[in-house]
Order: sequence, then C-alpha cells, then structure tokens
Amino acid sequence: MNQLFTPNSIALVGASADSEKLSGRPYRYLRKHGYEGDIYLVNPSHDTIDGQPCYDSVGELPAGVDLAMALVPARLTPQVATDCGDAGIPYVLVIASGFSETEDGEALEAELLDAAHEAGVRLVGPNSEGLVNVPDKVGASFSSILKRDALVPGGLSFVTQSGAFGGALFQLTQDRGIGGNTWLSTGNEADLTTVDFLRYLVEDPDTDVVVSYVESLTRGAELLDVGRRAAETDTDLVAIRVGESPAGRQAAASHTGSIASDDAVYDAVFAQAGITSVWGVDEYVDTVTALSTVPSTAYPDVDADAGRGIGVLSVSGGAAVLIADTCHRLGLPLASFAPETVAAIEAEIPAYGSATNPVDVTGGIISQPELFERCMRSVVRDDAVEAVVLQFGNSGGETIETCKAELLDIQATYDVPLAVVFTGGQPAPETADELRDAGVLLFEDPVRAVRTLEMLADRRRARERAARLPDRGDISTRRPLPDGGSWQTVTDALAEQGLAFARTRSVDSADAAVAAADQLGYPVAMKLNPLAVEHKSEVGGVRVGLADAAAVRDAYDALATVADDGPVLVQEQVDGVEAIVGVVDDPDFGPVMLVGPGGVFVELFDDFAYRALPVTEAMAREMLNETVLGELLDGYRGAAPGDVDALVSFLVAVSDAYETFDLAELECNPVVVTSDDAVAVDLLVR
Amino acid sequence: MNQLFTPNSIALVGASADSEKLSGRPYRYLRKHGYEGDIYLVNPSHDTIDGQPCYDSVGELPAGVDLAMALVPARLTPQVATDCGDAGIPYVLVIASGFSETEDGEALEAELLDAAHEAGVRLVGPNSEGLVNVPDKVGASFSSILKRDALVPGGLSFVTQSGAFGGALFQLTQDRGIGGNTWLSTGNEADLTTVDFLRYLVEDPDTDVVVSYVESLTRGAELLDVGRRAAETDTDLVAIRVGESPAGRQAAASHTGSIASDDAVYDAVFAQAGITSVWGVDEYVDTVTALSTVPSTAYPDVDADAGRGIGVLSVSGGAAVLIADTCHRLGLPLASFAPETVAAIEAEIPAYGSATNPVDVTGGIISQPELFERCMRSVVRDDAVEAVVLQFGNSGGETIETCKAELLDIQATYDVPLAVVFTGGQPAPETADELRDAGVLLFEDPVRAVRTLEMLADRRRARERAARLPDRGDISTRRPLPDGGSWQTVTDALAEQGLAFARTRSVDSADAAVAAADQLGYPVAMKLNPLAVEHKSEVGGVRVGLADAAAVRDAYDALATVADDGPVLVQEQVDGVEAIVGVVDDPDFGPVMLVGPGGVFVELFDDFAYRALPVTEAMAREMLNETVLGELLDGYRGAAPGDVDALVSFLVAVSDAYETFDLAELECNPVVVTSDDAVAVDLLVR
Repeated sequence: MNQLFTPNSIALVGASADSEKLSGRPYRYLRKHGYEGDIYLVNPSHDTIDGQPCYDSVGELPAGVDLAMALVPARLTPQVATDCGDAGIPYVLVIASGFSETEDGEALEAELLDAAHEAGVRLVGPNSEGLVNVPDKVGASFSSILKRDALVPGGLSFVTQSGAFGGALFQLTQDRGIGGNTWLSTGNEADLTTVDFLRYLVEDPDTDVVVSYVESLTRGAELLDVGRRAAETDTDLVAIRVGESPAGRQAAASHTGSIASDDAVYDAVFAQAGITSVWGVDEYVDTVTALSTVPSTAYPDVDADAGRGIGVLSVSGGAAVLIADTCHRLGLPLASFAPETVAAIEAEIPAYGSATNPVDVTGGIISQPELFERCMRSVVRDDAVEAVVLQFGNSGGETIETCKAELLDIQATYDVPLAVVFTGGQPAPETADELRDAGVLLFEDPVRAVRTLEMLADRRRARERAARLPDRGDISTRRPLPDGGSWQTVTDALAEQGLAFARTRSVDSADAAVAAADQLGYPVAMKLNPLAVEHKSEVGGVRVGLADAAAVRDAYDALATVADDGPVLVQEQVDGVEAIVGVVDDPDFGPVMLVGPGGVFVELFDDFAYRALPVTEAMAREMLNETVLGELLDGYRGAAPGDVDALVSFLVAVSDAYETFDLAELECNPVVVTSDDAVAVDLLVR
Repeated sequence: MNQLFTPNSIALVGASADSEKLSGRPYRYLRKHGYEGDIYLVNPSHDTIDGQPCYDSVGELPAGVDLAMALVPARLTPQVATDCGDAGIPYVLVIASGFSETEDGEALEAELLDAAHEAGVRLVGPNSEGLVNVPDKVGASFSSILKRDALVPGGLSFVTQSGAFGGALFQLTQDRGIGGNTWLSTGNEADLTTVDFLRYLVEDPDTDVVVSYVESLTRGAELLDVGRRAAETDTDLVAIRVGESPAGRQAAASHTGSIASDDAVYDAVFAQAGITSVWGVDEYVDTVTALSTVPSTAYPDVDADAGRGIGVLSVSGGAAVLIADTCHRLGLPLASFAPETVAAIEAEIPAYGSATNPVDVTGGIISQPELFERCMRSVVRDDAVEAVVLQFGNSGGETIETCKAELLDIQATYDVPLAVVFTGGQPAPETADELRDAGVLLFEDPVRAVRTLEMLADRRRARERAARLPDRGDISTRRPLPDGGSWQTVTDALAEQGLAFARTRSVDSADAAVAAADQLGYPVAMKLNPLAVEHKSEVGGVRVGLADAAAVRDAYDALATVADDGPVLVQEQVDGVEAIVGVVDDPDFGPVMLVGPGGVFVELFDDFAYRALPVTEAMAREMLNETVLGELLDGYRGAAPGDVDALVSFLVAVSDAYETFDLAELECNPVVVTSDDAVAVDLLVR
C-alpha cells in the first residue's frame, strides 16, 4: 500500500474551485503543506483552478497516478472507481457521505464496491475524511488537522473510524509536540478496513506507535497477526474502542454463545493481540506521549517477587504516600532498594526525611543540586529500579531550575523512564519543553504519572506475550464431526483430539442401565443424551447421586418418558471444581474460547476469560488465573486443589478439536476438575 | 472555634527577624495579605522586628489575644502552652516538628499535650504548617500558598494532614480561580483533630465545600454527625484518603474482625457519612471545581427507570458514542427525550445528524447561533434532562465564539449543569474565563466531564442519605451479656433484641441428643457449643445431615470426645442462602457491621459491605445490594428467593443488640436465609 500512503502523484477528481468547500480543501491543503508529488485536478467545469489546469475526465490523466481522491457527490463515485480502474490508478479515496451510514445508502455502497472490484481498484471509505502523511506532506484530506500551518513529523500513526473525533485526538497530540506520521480516516470501510491499514503501519519503519479509534471491526481475528508483527517490528499498538454491542448478534444454543458479549470479546482479543486499550482523552494523551518518548528498551520490567519496580522521590511525605498507594492500587510494585541505596540517600537527606522507597527527600535537598543529584543517581542506579517518579510541590517551578542540569544529565545517562510531577508550582514553559525534549515525562497529577508507568510496564509484558502468539494455521481442512446425535461416537472423536469425558454408557433399557451402573460403580448420574436434548436440567433431565440399582431403575423410567424412548446415558459421578469451557464462532473475531466457573457457578460468579483460537498452554493458564476459577482450583476452606495441568490440557484439546472439526459451537459444562484429572460430564456441539 | 479560625489578634511567639525562615514567614505573610487584627511579636532577643516592637514574653502581652502561633523549637513548646494558658490565650498553633512523627518525639508530644490540658488551651499541631483564612486575611502559616500576591476568596475549605501536599492541592485550585475560605494543616493532631475542624467548618456559612486530606482518623465515628450536619447546612464534603492500614490492628477472634480491613472500613464509613472520596489531582480539581461552581439545587437527580439523566450534544458522532459509552460504564443514565424534544431537534439539524440522545448536531449547526440555541434549549428544557454535555471538536475554539452568547443565556436561564468539552480546538483564554464565570464547567476530556456529572449526581444522593443518618444515641447504658458460655442463655438474651436462631437443644448425653433430635425433626445438625469452642469446623466440631437416631448417637460420641464432656448442641438443620453478619469495634470508627455471603462463601466471594452502627432498615437493604448476597437472595438457577425482609430485620436487630450489650465482637455466621425466615445457626460473642 505504499502507493496509497506515500503516493507520488494524486488526482483530485471533482476538485472544487472554492477552497473552503470540503471538495476544495484537499488541493489547498496539499499545496499548503508542501506536497512534493504531482497533483492533477479533474473538473470539466473549469479550465484551471488556482492557475493549475483541470482535466475534463480521469481518462485524460497521464499514466502512473498512485491515488485518486473522489471529491464528487456520492452517486457519481461508482463511475469514478470505474474510470480510475481504466486509467490504472490503484487506490481511490472516497470522501462523499450518503452510503451505508444512512438509511438509503446501502445499495449505493454495494454499487461502488462492485465497480471498484470490477475495475481492480482498492477503496478507502466512502465517508472518509482522507489521509494525512506528515513526513511526506500528503494532505489528502479535508480534516481540520490540516488547518495548522505546520504539522510536527514523528512516529505516531492514527487510524480512525470517526473522522471528526479522531482528528481532534490527533490534533491534541500535535499541540503537545508529539510527532505524527500517518492519520487515516477509514470511513465506512466498504473495501479496505482498519485491520488492513494496521497491517501496513506495523511494517512501516517510520511508525513507532499506531493508535486506532474503533467502533466495530471486520476480520478482527487478523488482529492477532497484526499484534505479533507489531511485537516483531518494535511497534506499539493502542486502541480506543467505543460503541455498544450490535443488536444483531446471532442467537446461540450454548451458554458460551449467550454469555460472550461483544464488549468482553473485544476487550479480550485486543489484549491478546498486545493492544493497549485506552479510555478518554487524558489517558490517550498520556499513553501516546509516553510511548512516543520512552524507548521500548526502557519499558519497566517490574516483578514484585524479585523486588523490581518503581522508585519514588518526593519533596513531601503526603505525596509519597499517595504515590505508593496508587502503585499498590494498580498492582505496580515499588522497588526494594539495595541497602547501599538506602545508605547513600540517608547520608544526603535530613533526619526528618525518609531514605526508603518511597523516598521523602524533603523540600530542602531538592534545591541543593549536588545532594539532589547524588540521591537521584543512587535511586536510578539501583538494579531494582525500573522507573522513577519524582514529585515536586508548590515550589517545584523554582526548585527545578536549580536541579534541572543534574536531572537532564541523569536522564541522558540511564535507560530508565523518569516521570516528573509538578503539583501546585508549574515549571516555566521553556523548562518544561527542555525536559520533554530530553525524554522526561511531565505530569501535574501523580496518579496519572503512576498510571502511565504501569501502562509502560504492561506494554512490555503485552509485547512479550504478543511475540509468542501462535499462528492459527490452515483451517481449510476442518471436517465434520461424525454422527452428531450419538454420545459415544462424538465423544470418541473428540477424545482423539485429547478431550477427556466421564465414563458413560448409552443404554436403552432399565436393565441395561443397571448393568452399566454396576460396571461404572455407584453412585452414578443419569441423563438424557445432551447431543439430542438441550437444556436438560430445565426439563428435569439430569439425575445425580443414584446410589443403587433401584434408584437407577427409577431414574431410567423417568428419563425414558421425557426422552421419548431415546437412549439414556449412565455416567460415573465425578465430584470436583466445575468449569465451563466453550468455543463460539464470533462474527467479528472468529472462534473465541470462553472459560470460567461452571455448573451452577456460571451465573453466580459471572466471571469468564476469553481468547481467540488457537489457545496454547500458556494462554490456557492465563485464562484460569484471570477468573475466580484459579482460586477455586487452589482449593478453598480445606477442599483439595484441582488438577490445573489436566484442565489446561483440556482447554488446549478443545482448541485443537474446534480447529479440526467443522463446528459452530462446542461447549463442555461442566468440566469437573478433580485432584488428578479434568473430565467433561456434559457436551454440546452444533 | 471562631477565635481560632477568625482571630481578632494573633501572637507570634518566637517570631524570627529573618522573614525567609519558617519562624519569620508568618509575620511577613500576615502583613502581606493584609491581616486586619492585632499582631503581637514575642521575641526576647529583639526590641523590634520590621519596626514593630517585640515583647519579651507571653506574660507581657495585653489581654484578649485569640491565637498564639508557637514558632519556637519543639522543646520550648510546652512552656509556650503553659504561658498562653496563664495569659488567657485559648488557642496555640504549634509549627515545630520533632514530636510523635519522629522516633524520639512521643514523650515531648505527651508533655506538650499535658501542658496544654493543664493550662486550658487547645492545640493545633504540633508539626502543623498553620492556618490560612482567605476572606479574613489570616495568613497564620509558613505555607508557600501564601507566596502568591493575592488569594482568591470563596467557599472552599481544606483540612489537611499533609501540609506540603495539601498546600499544593489548595494552590492548584487557587490557580484555577476556585475561591478558598480556610486552609488548615492539622499536623500531628495531638489535641484538636481533623474531625474537630470538620465539625466547625460544616457550620461555617461561608464554607460551601470542605476537602480533607486524611492519612488516619481518630474519633472517626463522629464523621457520621459531621456528614448529617453537612447535609443540613448545604455543605459538600470531599476526602482524599491515603495511607496503608496500621500494622497494629488488634487481633480479632471473629471472621468479621480479620476480614474488616482498615481500608474497607474507611471507604464504607466515609461513604456512609456522605463524603465523596477522590483519588489524585485531576479528580480533586474536577470535583472541587464543579462543587464550587454548580449550586446544590442543580445537582442532577438521575433515575434510569424514570428516564431522567444526561443530555448529550456533540458535533461528531464518534465523540457522542464515547460519551454515551462512558455514561453507560459509570452507570449514569442518559435522558430519554420527550418526543417533542426529538422533533424540535430534528427540525434544526441536517439529515446526517442524530436527533435522539446522544444528539449529533453536526459541525455545521453549531456555527449557526439561532439553530444551535434552539437545539440547546430543546434539550435543556426537557424534563428528563438533569445535566448536559456539549462536545466540541477541532474547530471548537472558533465555533464557541459564534454561539457563546446563546450558551451564556441558556446557562443563566436554567438550573441545569452544563459541561462543555473542547477536544482538539481550545477556546481563547478570555472566552474560557467568561464561560467559567457564568457557571459553565469546561473540560478537554469528555470522560472527565461525564465523571464529574456522575459525581454531582452521586453527591445529591449522598446528601439525601446523610440527612437521614440516625443518631447513635446513648450507649453508656450497655450491659453485659448474661453468662457468656451458655448457648441458651445467650441466645435468649439476644432473641429479646430481635435476633432469630435455629431451634437448638443443649444436651449432655447421647440419649438426650436423640430425644432432642426426635423433637426437632430429622435431619439435624450437631456441634460443639460455639460460645465455648472457637473455629469448630476446623476441629471437626460440626456434623450436618444427621438423618436418624443412630447417626445422632454416633455424632454425640464423637463430639463429646472433642468437647471434653462439655454440652453438645443439637440443632434443626436449616438450608438456604448463607450470610455472615458481624460487628467489630473498630479502633478508628467504633462499632462497624460487616455483611456478606456467609459459610463457605466467605472466602470464595470475599465480598462484604460495612456500616458504622447504628444500622437502620434502609441501610441494611443498601448493604445487601452492595454485595453478591443481593443476587444470591434473588434466587439463582431456579432456587427459591431468600426472605430479604427477614434478613434486613436481623441486621437491624444485631445493630440494636450490639448497642444494648457490652460486647467487643458479635458474629453470626452463617445466618441462613430461607424463603420465609432468616435464622442464625452459629454465634460468636466476645
């Protein structure tokens, strides 16, 4: 997509002579920002615009145009696509609205897409505000971002499904001096989608951070590839995801299907892909600023057990406590200083300060450059310190002037993020700029400083996880499950993939039931074949704790009535921690696994973890620990711990099975985890 | 405490001639800020300071001095207290540090307090940064707050346990034009405490908002009185509470005692007293700004069921979705517009906008003053609209100029909070000031705008709740529980207060046990007398599901061995939802009740609600709904709902019982809630 993002020439089809109009602005903005490629105007109503000749039609354009902006009304855009195809222009960016975002525009959008397919051109939009490439001065947009006299080039790229709000966010970072690379408004995504643009941008060597503003995604499963590539290309991914769940989600037969909300699945798959989700403008600004400022090698590698974490220096005890509390609330560990560090600080600060982390250096020392520098260096040099918060108070604006040189030298010497907080007294603007340019992170609110360091630590982990994401592999060979109605046949097939089931016999008489129970050992459970009957417990289809032959005989008779003489299952009774494990085919993300407390605990805890398939052993372990299931498996109030390894293997087996067989839904609820096994006692496939 | 907060005369004892020193600054600051009362300097080393005569001793001062600031070293402060008492000075504010905040200073602080008691003077501090009363120009402090040339007077008062950080926070709001009344640094609170100062300030007619920065509280139970009075005097209470739990919490016999963490109890009692807790600088600024700006009559009265909530107008669909999502996340309902409102907006906006809430008025209309005004009025006038968010985008700085007059007129006409968000394009500073002065709330981040409106809605509810807080009443008549070791005697006494217990017989032979079980009906439970043995289930002391005489006989024999021939309880077996209900005597807050899922669910859910006593019926209902117990009682997966009314009565009875008997701890775990009753099956008192 180089021709789209860095076009050597752009045709403005339907360019207006009125440079205030949306269709007139791109020409003005391209010129204003110094676009160095060729610009061609197509407008049969004018001979020239602003002194530049107009072509009557796309067909008259010279060969080799990379990108056409369709600035014509919506109904004319299919013809523009066709004309561009004929003229060999590979990309068409459609500005007009009035397509699928309106009540009557669906058909026109389909027509436009057909025309593009037929002509062999790729579309951006329709209903896009355009594309801005800052370093290459491509202002192919009418966005008010381009009203600025000059844009700040840098490594931030932004892909947005909201032109107006995405533009405002990009402008905010520009105003704060965060350099931009590419800004692209995706519009209705009739053809090229957010995922396509992300795929391109994570490969772009000039892009360090990609932000996407997402209302809904198509081909969301591909985010996992994007995430893995981003980790490989040292690119950070950030998303602002808004929008309610679509009402039109398909009805699902399983719990999994009805539980797995759009929002929960979005959150989980974004996290799985190593994407940092942010909410709101402040968090966006803080996140993007830090990711654009701090080199990825310096992202904090925190570990509470190893004592690696944040070092805090404050001029006031009160702020030190607030910062330490905030670290605690966010789960960001404080560093455990080495004894030498504490001793070195103790030697510098007054007796009423505190030399342990969080350090209260007191207001006095910070205006004594040499003492301040020695304290700071002691902290930054400590191996346990992965990032530093330095808190100033009311006099911060003055005292920073006395210790600025030392601070800048320390920032230049060590690969450790420094977050400096000015609460009350702010630094002079030029001092603030100088600190920022040197890579220091500035804040007014210590809580935002801590949140930002926690985000950096989290990005380090997210990138490591994303780098290990497995390929989904080839799923074109998925085959049907044999005979959907037979418990034995179906579970045998799944058992070959590694799923374990409670020992079960399918019987069609009371005598056979008793024989099966004798063989399995009492007590047994009996039920209708769940592959034939749904929601058994609601029709009284499950009997447990059957302790003898008489009970089994009674149960058979009752079940056979309900089952309408179909076969009945006799099953060994397994007691342990119950889990639900299910997979649904999510409309946006493809197959997604859900895991959580099962059986009656499904509704009670309402606590689930999700992953897009395939699920590896490491991911399976993560999922268990994300829900209360992890605690249940640890054993509570003296109960024996469940066999976590067995359940982990079960999850991986379910993932494999789903990829092997051509299924819409697969759910085991409950899977019973005993002290030495994990077996499904129930099964639903569709 | 008028003499403290608004002194007619101040003696500076130990005032330094060096106005840069901490002990020299108060004189300088009092003069600089134009204190109009008498200032007396006491310093035997100087005849005059800055031209003003110095007294040699406190004893030489004229009569009628209201407040003395002790600016002397720590070791001299007890003598100052004594001298002030002799001179009839009622309040002494001690600046020096080196008291209980240091390792060796406890004794000196005790000596100071003794001297003050003996002399009949009240102390602020020691280790206080002083007191600032803005309207009365009392700068009795060395805080850098007073470095400013002029302070902005207004209704914000601030009581802080951290002088430096509390000063920085107060200065922040001053810098933003939020007027201040009183700022007080409480220091070590050897005598007068945060609660004393809050008591005074909620009665102060010039104080509208009181913020306290709290690390730990003494006499925290009195916060409930403070909260009720604040509701009555139309004062808002805000707290920033930091600091970890004190390590020295007393060992507790009950679950309640070991579960009830300091942090959980603080949070609960603050909320109960109607205090809004904030975390971090941004939230502090937003909260205080809104409370200082919006009249309490305009706090949103939202109600999701009635459709009353927030109206949203945005120039971009993307921001509108983000705002609506944020409302959803925070549980702040959007208003359901009346059909007339929708029709009126529809008539003004272009077809590609949206006339339902959240309204996308589109970028065009907002630069057309008359259309914008009609849209805004339609929304503000709608009865369902309790507050409005108006979102601008990149062009906000320009478009606000075209619609400013209309906006100001609307703000002046309607008693509805208007939150205007400028993301990207900021308004000119003078425009921003004009809007702020008119009472408009300004934001850059729509998420912070929504959070702030949610805070206002929450304050409305908090004030209503606080106004209904019951008096604790007289507890001096608490009497001992009769005979602590007998189940029957103790439960009879508690039953008189309204507690219900499962029917229970105390037996001392196997035959008596069988007779009791026959009478109670099978199955029965048997256990050791919990009033004699603690943690029964851990020593195998509880048997349940005893279905016949033989089982009862076996159980008796086993229990009698463990019980060392003491009596054994035979109890009707009650099945239902299990709750834990306990009261402990919290060191900071007095008696606090804990309620949550009980029995084995205590550790599993780890989900509790707390209230300081006395607990009313309304509070009991709130507590149930704050934990998963509320859902459990609703019935899950077909189980019968529990009798909520019975459990509510039980909680109130426990509260009454605790206030009647002289107890340290009282715990019923579990209380079993059946479909028509709530009875304790276990009891612990201490």
